[in-house]
Amino acid sequence: EIRAQLVEQQKCLEQQTEMRVQLLQDLQDFFRKKSEIEMEYSRNLEKLAERFMAKTRSTKDHQQYKKDQNLLSPVNCWYLLLNQVRRESKDHATLSEIYLNNVIMRFMQISEDSTRMFKKSKEISFQLHEDLMKVLNELYTVMKTYHMYHAESISAESKLKEAEKQEEKQIGRSGDPVFHIRLEERHQRRSSVKKIEKMKEKRQAKYSENKLKSIKARNEYLLTLEATNASVFKYYIHDLSDLIDCCDLGYHASLNRALRTYLSAEYNLETSRHEGLDIIENAVDSLEPRSDKQRFMEMYPTAFCPPMKFEFQSHMGDEVCQVTAQQPVQAELMLRYQQLQSRLATLKIENEEVKKTTEATLQTIQDMVTIEDYDVSECFQHSRSTESVKSTVSETYLSKPSIAKRRANQQETEQFYFMV
Amino acid sequence: EIRAQLVEQQKCLEQQTEMRVQLLQDLQDFFRKKSEIEMEYSRNLEKLAERFMAKTRSTKDHQQYKKDQNLLSPVNCWYLLLNQVRRESKDHATLSEIYLNNVIMRFMQISEDSTRMFKKSKEISFQLHEDLMKVLNELYTVMKTYHMYHAESISAESKLKEAEKQEEKQIGRSGDPVFHIRLEERHQRRSSVKKIEKMKEKRQAKYSENKLKSIKARNEYLLTLEATNASVFKYYIHDLSDLIDCCDLGYHASLNRALRTYLSAEYNLETSRHEGLDIIENAVDSLEPRSDKQRFMEMYPTAFCPPMKFEFQSHMGDEVCQVTAQQPVQAELMLRYQQLQSRLATLKIENEEVKKTTEATLQTIQDMVTIEDYDVSECFQHSRSTESVKSTVSETYLSKPSIAKRRANQQETEQFYFMV
Repeated sequence: EIRAQLVEQQKCLEQQTEMRVQLLQDLQDFFRKKSEIEMEYSRNLEKLAERFMAKTRSTKDHQQYKKDQNLLSPVNCWYLLLNQVRRESKDHATLSEIYLNNVIMRFMQISEDSTRMFKKSKEISFQLHEDLMKVLNELYTVMKTYHMYHAESISAESKLKEAEKQEEKQIGRSGDPVFHIRLEERHQRRSSVKKIEKMKEKRQAKYSENKLKSIKARNEYLLTLEATNASVFKYYIHDLSDLIDCCDLGYHASLNRALRTYLSAEYNLETSRHEGLDIIENAVDSLEPRSDKQRFMEMYPTAFCPPMKFEFQSHMGDEVCQVTAQQPVQAELMLRYQQLQSRLATLKIENEEVKKTTEATLQTIQDMVTIEDYDVSECFQHSRSTESVKSTVSETYLSKPSIAKRRANQQETEQFYFMV
Repeated sequence: EIRAQLVEQQKCLEQQTEMRVQLLQDLQDFFRKKSEIEMEYSRNLEKLAERFMAKTRSTKDHQQYKKDQNLLSPVNCWYLLLNQVRRESKDHATLSEIYLNNVIMRFMQISEDSTRMFKKSKEISFQLHEDLMKVLNELYTVMKTYHMYHAESISAESKLKEAEKQEEKQIGRSGDPVFHIRLEERHQRRSSVKKIEKMKEKRQAKYSENKLKSIKARNEYLLTLEATNASVFKYYIHDLSDLIDCCDLGYHASLNRALRTYLSAEYNLETSRHEGLDIIENAVDSLEPRSDKQRFMEMYPTAFCPPMKFEFQSHMGDEVCQVTAQQPVQAELMLRYQQLQSRLATLKIENEEVKKTTEATLQTIQDMVTIEDYDVSECFQHSRSTESVKSTVSETYLSKPSIAKRRANQQETEQFYFMV
């Protein structure tokens, strides 16, 4: 019965090892496939970046960029976007490589180690089982010996008892009316008593011997029983646990390191990605119309440079260069000046009105185009019901009616702005 | 000349708008392509997860998992890995969708807006250019008028001077020797002087008139000159800037929001990914041989349950259940006891020695399998020379000789451990 259990234990350990080897094989297959996916993703990103890089490399902007790194802010964002894709491409290639050359190799080694450890533990458990069976066989032997000796002791005892009965009978007969008995008879009887006595003594000796043997065998049995129980206890409580530990040796720790390698790669990819995004965010923060306008005008100096002031073109040496106000002209000029003054005052008031309206309208437009409608975090909720979240999101951000309405509104305001 | 510059300005603004439209088209193409890449990546990840999920769903572990969520710690890590891939798949699909339905749409709208704004600004600049040309034409007209009047004034002046010269000549001739001249002659001369005087008066009036006209024209010219310079200044300093602003209206702000949508999506993907990785890290932290051993033994209760204690099997009513020590046996038992005692003492010392060695060796193995060699951050450095970094990395982590050496070392130690 114990033998069957020992075989079952061995089977369980073997099964455990098989399951581990299977798991490690799955992990290898998984990371091999994921490595391929990451590599393909990396290549696609690289192609994407390369396609647009090639396109922009030839443009005027790019030469400007190489020359003085002084770009229009949207173009700068565009270049950083392409850089980010390149960075992602490189990082996913690195990830793929780490999977292939590091993580998978570790799983392979853990699998080898597990198999080797199981073999070692099998050798050890074989030895332990042998020892245990020896002990159990010994227990069986000493028990049999005890039973045998005890049986013999019982049989010797019964024989002794029989002899004692005979002796008693003999003594009882001779003790009766002794005088009735003849001499020969008496003599015969005495020798018979003596014979019985001798037999009894012999049986007594035999019994004592057997009794001692039986006691010794019983002692041996009891001691072996104790020892066997201790051995079995030791095996089940200590050795079996040690055997499992032997199979486990390094398994969890190595698995830990392999998975930590994976985690380290993933976390580092994430950090790199984050750094790249921060660079883009900085560039987005510095999307600035004013400096771009400056740069734009500097790019075309001939177009935007104000012309020379118109100078007085005197006719044939005529030299007066200021408005001349001799008597007859003066009155006329004064009248004209007053007219202009009043016209100017009216225009100023009108202008002030228009300016206020314009500024208000412009502010409305500005508010419309700077509304913070770009947070999409709700789309990335991994709660129970992804579906219901998605529908909410599409209502807020992606629904066409809402955007169309907002745009109509914006264009109406624009119209008003330009009319003013 | 100014007209040509105005045309050039218009061209520059048109070119700027074209470049913007082109950039926005590139951005749309870029995100459309990236959306495809993300969707393909997502699908590949989904397939990967599904493949292994399907494989594990049928296993005993998985049924265990569904039943009581009580898994062996490595199997738990494995399931979480698959979950993470699923999560990544979903997140990249979301990313792809946001690119397609939100980011690209925004760029499309900005492109429309830019074109519309440019058209508006073209209308306005047409009006401004018309006004400016009107002012310049007026300046030209008043200058011509001034030149004409001034020329007329000069001609009138020279005619007046000629008349004065004639008068002087006449006066000089009559003032000479008057007595030589005949009366008729005298009379003739007087009428001639009068004639000349009349002509001179006429020319004097003509000159004064022309002179005044010329001064008025010059004043008009000077005032128009001032006004023109002011108009041109206003156009170049204010209007032109306003025109560019008009083209820019909302451009940077809208671009900002579009790119922030992209950033929001990317940052959220990162956060989600990070959360998933943290869950795995937790599971890796709880890779624990002890509780797994417990779970393993509970999985096979019949194999690992210790058997009943062996009880004393008495023979035919023999009832002594402890070691019996009657006289003859006692001495023998005592001797045996003493022998066992001394054997035990020797074993204890030996055992203590072995235990120490074993523990030291085990510690060495433990140290070997828990060495922290899983940090791959160096692979993700985006410094100047990626190549040189990579070679360093391969030396530390991926080089086969170093790993092979370490493994040989580990197996040697293992060998020693088992021999002991």
